[in-house]
Amino acid sequence: MLKKIDLNSDLGESFGQWQMGDDAAILPLVSSANVACGFHAGSPAHLLKTLKAAAAENVMIGAHVSYPDLVGFGRRNMDIASEELTADVIYQIGALEGLAQAAGTQVRYVKPHGALYNTIAHNERQALAVIDAILAINPELPLVGLAGSPLLSLAQQKGLKTVAEAFADRAYHSDGTLVSRQQTGAVIHDARQAAERMLQWVTEGGIISIEGEFTPIEAQSICVHGDTPQAVVMATEIHRLLVSLGIVIGSFLSE
Amino acid sequence: MLKKIDLNSDLGESFGQWQMGDDAAILPLVSSANVACGFHAGSPAHLLKTLKAAAAENVMIGAHVSYPDLVGFGRRNMDIASEELTADVIYQIGALEGLAQAAGTQVRYVKPHGALYNTIAHNERQALAVIDAILAINPELPLVGLAGSPLLSLAQQKGLKTVAEAFADRAYHSDGTLVSRQQTGAVIHDARQAAERMLQWVTEGGIISIEGEFTPIEAQSICVHGDTPQAVVMATEIHRLLVSLGIVIGSFLSE
Amino acid sequence: MLKKIDLNSDLGESFGQWQMGDDAAILPLVSSANVACGFHAGSPAHLLKTLKAAAAENVMIGAHVSYPDLVGFGRRNMDIASEELTADVIYQIGALEGLAQAAGTQVRYVKPHGALYNTIAHNERQALAVIDAILAINPELPLVGLAGSPLLSLAQQKGLKTVAEAFADRAYHSDGTLVSRQQTGAVIHDARQAAERMLQWVTEGGIISIEGEFTPIEAQSICVHGDTPQAVVMATEIHRLLVSLGIVIGSFLSE
Amino acid sequence: MLKKIDLNSDLGESFGQWQMGDDAAILPLVSSANVACGFHAGSPAHLLKTLKAAAAENVMIGAHVSYPDLVGFGRRNMDIASEELTADVIYQIGALEGLAQAAGTQVRYVKPHGALYNTIAHNERQALAVIDAILAINPELPLVGLAGSPLLSLAQQKGLKTVAEAFADRAYHSDGTLVSRQQTGAVIHDARQAAERMLQWVTEGGIISIEGEFTPIEAQSICVHGDTPQAVVMATEIHRLLVSLGIVIGSFLSE
Repeated sequence: MLKKIDLNSDLGESFGQWQMGDDAAILPLVSSANVACGFHAGSPAHLLKTLKAAAAENVMIGAHVSYPDLVGFGRRNMDIASEELTADVIYQIGALEGLAQAAGTQVRYVKPHGALYNTIAHNERQALAVIDAILAINPELPLVGLAGSPLLSLAQQKGLKTVAEAFADRAYHSDGTLVSRQQTGAVIHDARQAAERMLQWVTEGGIISIEGEFTPIEAQSICVHGDTPQAVVMATEIHRLLVSLGIVIGSFLSE
Repeated sequence: MLKKIDLNSDLGESFGQWQMGDDAAILPLVSSANVACGFHAGSPAHLLKTLKAAAAENVMIGAHVSYPDLVGFGRRNMDIASEELTADVIYQIGALEGLAQAAGTQVRYVKPHGALYNTIAHNERQALAVIDAILAINPELPLVGLAGSPLLSLAQQKGLKTVAEAFADRAYHSDGTLVSRQQTGAVIHDARQAAERMLQWVTEGGIISIEGEFTPIEAQSICVHGDTPQAVVMATEIHRLLVSLGIVIGSFLSE
Repeated sequence: MLKKIDLNSDLGESFGQWQMGDDAAILPLVSSANVACGFHAGSPAHLLKTLKAAAAENVMIGAHVSYPDLVGFGRRNMDIASEELTADVIYQIGALEGLAQAAGTQVRYVKPHGALYNTIAHNERQALAVIDAILAINPELPLVGLAGSPLLSLAQQKGLKTVAEAFADRAYHSDGTLVSRQQTGAVIHDARQAAERMLQWVTEGGIISIEGEFTPIEAQSICVHGDTPQAVVMATEIHRLLVSLGIVIGSFLSE
Repeated sequence: MLKKIDLNSDLGESFGQWQMGDDAAILPLVSSANVACGFHAGSPAHLLKTLKAAAAENVMIGAHVSYPDLVGFGRRNMDIASEELTADVIYQIGALEGLAQAAGTQVRYVKPHGALYNTIAHNERQALAVIDAILAINPELPLVGLAGSPLLSLAQQKGLKTVAEAFADRAYHSDGTLVSRQQTGAVIHDARQAAERMLQWVTEGGIISIEGEFTPIEAQSICVHGDTPQAVVMATEIHRLLVSLGIVIGSFLSE
């Protein structure tokens, strides 16, 4: 049984006059903040504010790197050349690191966003382009990815540290893969149910799959969302339940 | 008389499929490269190539920060809020620093581009926003600006190192200010004439103003352009003439 | 006393995943919709939905043209060349007209947005660039602008129809100019007060200025906002009060 | 044997300060201009100039619609939702039509660009999204596409007119499909050879495939490129050879 677990959430997703998510509500709940880098969301002035708030809460900062697709919010697959993807990822990590330094903190890990996250879980060419980017700018930065995905072993082979994450609001198959969003029951909407699943996972190392079997999930972090009011409720409930049972919410980076 | 002078030029101004300038031709001529940061020009893959080439030539890298205005190439004045400008500048310096690290080099100074350069030469509010950005991300980075402009003394008061630059292809008034581009004779098109003016400036500390008087210019760098074939010819001629007379082309940062 | 008055509001200001305003709540209240054209807000799929909804409500469509400044929401002054501004405005009107045709309606007027609105109220060069754009694409489209501004007489001289508008939530000086937002009392936050001011204006042709005097305002439309829940409350109250007294809310284009 | 053939080329691909292609050199050679619409290239002021020049040369205007991908020049596949693609295509046709009206001409056909062109040749979902866009804005506009592709029959079923095009600089297989650019010999670099192939096609209705067989190509237009100096040489040679033999270069729209 784990005594400590990392909670991560996506932050910094406002852009200019457009607000998204409630960074102030989420920050006290999580130990790791995946902060947008301007390619799918996050204009610099918003990012700087979010980073200062994260620094004040001692939340670890991850670069939430994306395809260059503001209007699509980084959620559309893009057949981008490897050298362009590598340079795009370096650019984003650097930009966020600059803002983080100005906010008195620093980028401590990298988590790809949206379509890039899903694509590199299995697409080796694009995965290598992202891995190359991290190796080039700072090989000490761990890569956060989908538990059980080929990406993580590939990144380890190339010398990166990796962090696997479980999704609080998603159903799993008995082989440990995510149930597709197209399938009924793929997304868990009930905050209490999601919290209890995460409690079971933290205490027993697995969850009950959509097929009804206990399924081990090897992960070091839980991803919770914060882009809607309901998502904040769920994050709050998960945090409350875990803490009430003596489990510490803490970054995978701290001892 | 100066034995060594810095030559700086704008590089990395291609974007996606669009080429601008001839970075390969300019790099051997200059000691400092003002590299675009993506806001007026410079897509990440181009920037990474330019930075690698600059590193190979031991050319110092400056962050050529701009207003966010790709279609206007950063040449249009923009009434941007101070906190937005500060965050935009930090973001750009960070992004370029990330790419520079990946290229085995680093950002060593900051030079604002285009309309931002001209505006902050005299506009104190925006000048302070840029100065704040540099102080926040790395107060060791010198700020390159217009010789004789209020910006430089303001930056010094705030604790920044500054570098003044003279323009090889521009005429000056007897008070040391630039002749407006609207005025006849403002721009020097002849490569030989520009080179001889810069030679006089390096050897005597001043040039002949448009009014016909010897005019001292206090500066530590010469700005040459490289965005057109004619500009490359001029940069080549200036480099050739200075070097032929034993003047070393070297960064203001090296001893 | 007017028996009919136009209410106009800004719509179509969502962008990709980012929502802004409540178009569905505002549309039944207004007779004219200033629809964003993609330069400050409004991605095409959102615009098409808004235009279809506006067509269903028989609301007149105006092209809410802007400087090209998504991150600044078109609220930052920009020193743009006349030929660029003219082409930008034509592009936006054309894009919205295409979407309007697909939605079974059409663009019936032009209202500049944000900083462009404020700038051309007094800046003749940029005003002429916008006027030229409308003359070039469709000289029958009226231009909506600030009541009492030089823009309106200039546009009339050039052959355009014009529509002056009053602001429901702004205080006026006794000379008919708007009180600057920097000044206390410039913005009216109380819905009931705003509605009563507009009622007085519709029935008596003027409002009480910030200096306490009855001040005539020559206008053919009232601008109400809808980008915040409070703005919707105010628009609702203005609509309710006017309609309750038998005043028809109808476009300046209908007889 | 054809007595008249359409030559089409891509124009309006400059963006802000970045130039691409030589529109002035290409316009006298072609009968149809595929003009960028701002999503992969083409800032409004450039487009307006190109459209005026095309109008002066009596060249037909096509909307060269693209994925929204400026940095990738529309050459990267993008998994875009159908309703977004439909709205994006309508927006672009409308924007170009607005500029065309201002230039005294009009959009007369639609030709998808780059990755969108290649994808919809075979991807039915995205093809339908583009077809829906044309039907929604103006069902009279013909769709130009790859000779022999499923797109053309699908568009015809939905009620659109279609125009098939052959590529002057590409090799074909004996089944009429294009040889992949990955394969040796896929691209014809020699201007004279390309011109003679197009002459054979115009006079005999087919070309010699990469496998050495005479291969009929059913098409109503020849695509020539103009984005490099060599491309202009090839277009010039094709134009010269065809005209010298009495073949008229004329739009597929004229009688």
